[in-house]
Amino acid sequence: MGWRRRYAAVPFLNASIHTLMSQIAQEVAIDLGERSYRIAIGGGLLADAATYDGLPRASAALIVSNTTVAPLYAAALRAALAGRFAQIHEVQLPDGEAHKNWQTLQLIFDALLAHGCDRKTVLFALGGGVVGDMAGFAAASYMRGVPFVQVPTTLLAQVDSSVGGKTAINHPLGKNMIGAFYQPQRVVCDLDVLGTLPAREFSAGLAEVIKYGPIADMAFFDWLEQHIDALMARDRAALAHAVRRSCEIKADVVGQDERESGLRAILNFGHTFGHAIEAGMGYGAWLHGEGVGAGMVMAARLSQALGLVDAVFVQRLTDLVARAGLPVRGAVIDATDNAGRYLQLMRVDKKAEGGEIRFVVIDGPGQAAVRPAPDALVRAVIDASCAP
Amino acid sequence: MGWRRRYAAVPFLNASIHTLMSQIAQEVAIDLGERSYRIAIGGGLLADAATYDGLPRASAALIVSNTTVAPLYAAALRAALAGRFAQIHEVQLPDGEAHKNWQTLQLIFDALLAHGCDRKTVLFALGGGVVGDMAGFAAASYMRGVPFVQVPTTLLAQVDSSVGGKTAINHPLGKNMIGAFYQPQRVVCDLDVLGTLPAREFSAGLAEVIKYGPIADMAFFDWLEQHIDALMARDRAALAHAVRRSCEIKADVVGQDERESGLRAILNFGHTFGHAIEAGMGYGAWLHGEGVGAGMVMAARLSQALGLVDAVFVQRLTDLVARAGLPVRGAVIDATDNAGRYLQLMRVDKKAEGGEIRFVVIDGPGQAAVRPAPDALVRAVIDASCAP
Repeated sequence: MGWRRRYAAVPFLNASIHTLMSQIAQEVAIDLGERSYRIAIGGGLLADAATYDGLPRASAALIVSNTTVAPLYAAALRAALAGRFAQIHEVQLPDGEAHKNWQTLQLIFDALLAHGCDRKTVLFALGGGVVGDMAGFAAASYMRGVPFVQVPTTLLAQVDSSVGGKTAINHPLGKNMIGAFYQPQRVVCDLDVLGTLPAREFSAGLAEVIKYGPIADMAFFDWLEQHIDALMARDRAALAHAVRRSCEIKADVVGQDERESGLRAILNFGHTFGHAIEAGMGYGAWLHGEGVGAGMVMAARLSQALGLVDAVFVQRLTDLVARAGLPVRGAVIDATDNAGRYLQLMRVDKKAEGGEIRFVVIDGPGQAAVRPAPDALVRAVIDASCAP
Repeated sequence: MGWRRRYAAVPFLNASIHTLMSQIAQEVAIDLGERSYRIAIGGGLLADAATYDGLPRASAALIVSNTTVAPLYAAALRAALAGRFAQIHEVQLPDGEAHKNWQTLQLIFDALLAHGCDRKTVLFALGGGVVGDMAGFAAASYMRGVPFVQVPTTLLAQVDSSVGGKTAINHPLGKNMIGAFYQPQRVVCDLDVLGTLPAREFSAGLAEVIKYGPIADMAFFDWLEQHIDALMARDRAALAHAVRRSCEIKADVVGQDERESGLRAILNFGHTFGHAIEAGMGYGAWLHGEGVGAGMVMAARLSQALGLVDAVFVQRLTDLVARAGLPVRGAVIDATDNAGRYLQLMRVDKKAEGGEIRFVVIDGPGQAAVRPAPDALVRAVIDASCAP
């Protein structure tokens, strides 16, 4: 793609004794002019008051979390914020992609208005991608915009969804169809919280880590092949590198194309097929990262069918996805006309234009492109890629 | 306030024979960098295909209107757009402020997704302020943002709500609480459509015209005093001047403060009291402009109580509001503690900060400021201003 690399990883010396004792945190800058912010990465950050230095002043904060994460971390976050906000409110959403809808979003607005929150109130999204997307869209929309901070507690949210300002809810007819580009004030990636993540969720997060290799950095892909077992064992040093490198690549892409008018679409590698699986199976049956795992293999096969990559590359990606504990075959979402149903669902993808599906393909290892593909070719890939 | 005046009214030579025959249209530019656009003002614009020259290309358009306006103008708009979009879809919303909520907004998303509309689809808001606010918020949120055009069919929408990019829906606990700053591609003010407006709606629109005098331009206020009867008779030349001057002042203010971090709040003169009346009486009982009419008189009285303007000014404004067919006294919204209920409702106003209500007051004829006021003073103004 020829996009410039301008990495912004710099050491981030946190003055608090707590953090110095645990480890030196790092930060990645995301450069968007007046909407710039930084991603803090390290151990023990969530509960450290110094993590939140420099945020906008306000009398109130609202912690948006879910019924799974709040019992684990809300008290620690609240304690860390206590010196900064006179009032700290909290709302717990039901957990899961199936609840990423307007009804659940209303719970956030209801809480904000019930507490008389003004337009300076700071929202804290404490949870995974669903919480981050909903709290972010609520922040974008409440009184036409209040500040918010992402405190992602899943690997997927740390390496992908909490960075870059995409917020949304689902519509019955399509995933993430209603939302906003709205940047957070800060992203806080506390590596310690990844320890409590269920294995299935952790693997789902690795799908978004893996994607950065084929689309942008084959050296990172090589590193992942060498360290996938350490990552699966949640080795702290390996995690720190994977999260930082993922955030750097994402920051780089988003800094060049905030509103997805071009380049940014490559971050959706594997997502066109993946979204069809998620929607076709009913949201929540497959985790988002599971759909992306199988979707990347399908997109790589399509790239091969288009003559862009060879079988060796497809096999390497397939093996890495499998070693990350992810599915490598797509779901059968329609017993009668499976490929037809995939095509129907993919035509409402946000990248589609005038009914033409636009796929993120690998244009050669380490670089991606967005392009259409003949229906017959896509059908063949789907038929060859889906279980049983 | 000392804000620079940089008027942008320039003659707008429309090449179509139709428009040349009716009258030369004018345009007002709104200067917001890459989000700049123009407001076209004149007769016969809505049905003229040339009005829409230069809009973004797309395969589909969606006309968002309501059950009252669509039968009058949707066919003409559709005909004017027919050469530009391969597909023109339409959705009719129920009419009225009471329907400015999420359930109604969903009808727009449902239509967009049912028709498989992509992220280039152009929305056309054909109606008054409610339609414009909802279509605008839908455009801001659908696939995180699609282009839209305002075609306001009420005086209020032409002089105020369609210009400046404020979009929103109501929440049961507050008006316009959920929305976005999202600029249209163009605003089309066809003066001919004002002829079909019911008298009550027309008067409501005059409230927003009148407000521009006290806050920004006493020469315009003088002109309004001289031409209020001509306006009430819907004299075309008087209307053209009133709409153009209102749009110029609004464009000037919005161009300096798009996201209401300061100056822009003066456009809410009369709205803090007015919103309390609207909410307290139940949305739809009082028209928005009626609340603003009485609200301006109350805000002027508060300004007088603060020693900022004299009784002569308050009387002039009160007389002009009355001659425009608008209420000059506030509603009694609570028989037991009327002022207390007003205060309670005003504390959730978006301008409030930390529970402190911030009023737009007249700082001297032709200029406005935003400031708090002692509760006792506000109570006295409410008690003296409300019927019976």
